[in-house]
Amino acid sequence: MTDCIFCKIIAGEIPATIVYRDEQATAFRDINPAAPIHILIIPNKHIDSVNMMTVDDEPLIGHLFTTAKALAAQEGIANGGFRLIMNTNADAGQTVFHIHLHLLGGSRMKNPMG
Amino acid sequence: MTDCIFCKIIAGEIPATIVYRDEQATAFRDINPAAPIHILIIPNKHIDSVNMMTVDDEPLIGHLFTTAKALAAQEGIANGGFRLIMNTNADAGQTVFHIHLHLLGGSRMKNPMG
Repeated sequence: MTDCIFCKIIAGEIPATIVYRDEQATAFRDINPAAPIHILIIPNKHIDSVNMMTVDDEPLIGHLFTTAKALAAQEGIANGGFRLIMNTNADAGQTVFHIHLHLLGGSRMKNPMG
Repeated sequence: MTDCIFCKIIAGEIPATIVYRDEQATAFRDINPAAPIHILIIPNKHIDSVNMMTVDDEPLIGHLFTTAKALAAQEGIANGGFRLIMNTNADAGQTVFHIHLHLLGGSRMKNPMG
């Protein structure tokens, strides 16, 4: 039993526009896109945040990046470019406490980092 | 022989304020900080960008995140929060073509993503 909305998306209990899924990761479109293309890539295993990950999770977190690479190619933004962001806690605006990698692209980023 | 400035930082040929180093990764302060704390975490292995990484690199890229976790604790920003960003190609503003993870924190992020 979990109240995590991303765990529920993985389980199919909450609808989402899923664009990729494998044994380790699931990717779906952000419902409030911050760029023309905005996809969230999450591990199927629940991890609250970077603060809660362990060395054993390193391959899993790295897998989010090969997934991002494949999705960027699929979405036609690999050459133009894309930004990957993972937020932790309030100063960074983390709202869902299940690790998620934002894949943003489709135009030049409007905002500087920080 | 390489013209990569990050490879030269790893080799000690260009000075940088190095805050962490192990067999897989090196971290140093960004010379143009976009937040009160702005550290770059890079793999010691040269990889141009996310577009050039392979499945074999997944543990290495994941290691950048456990390094970020440790550095966030060391810098006193783990609880307050921190943003991790990896940019690829022009639309995202990638300027050095050696994969680097930006660790930003020390205040609430001023800019939205995208």
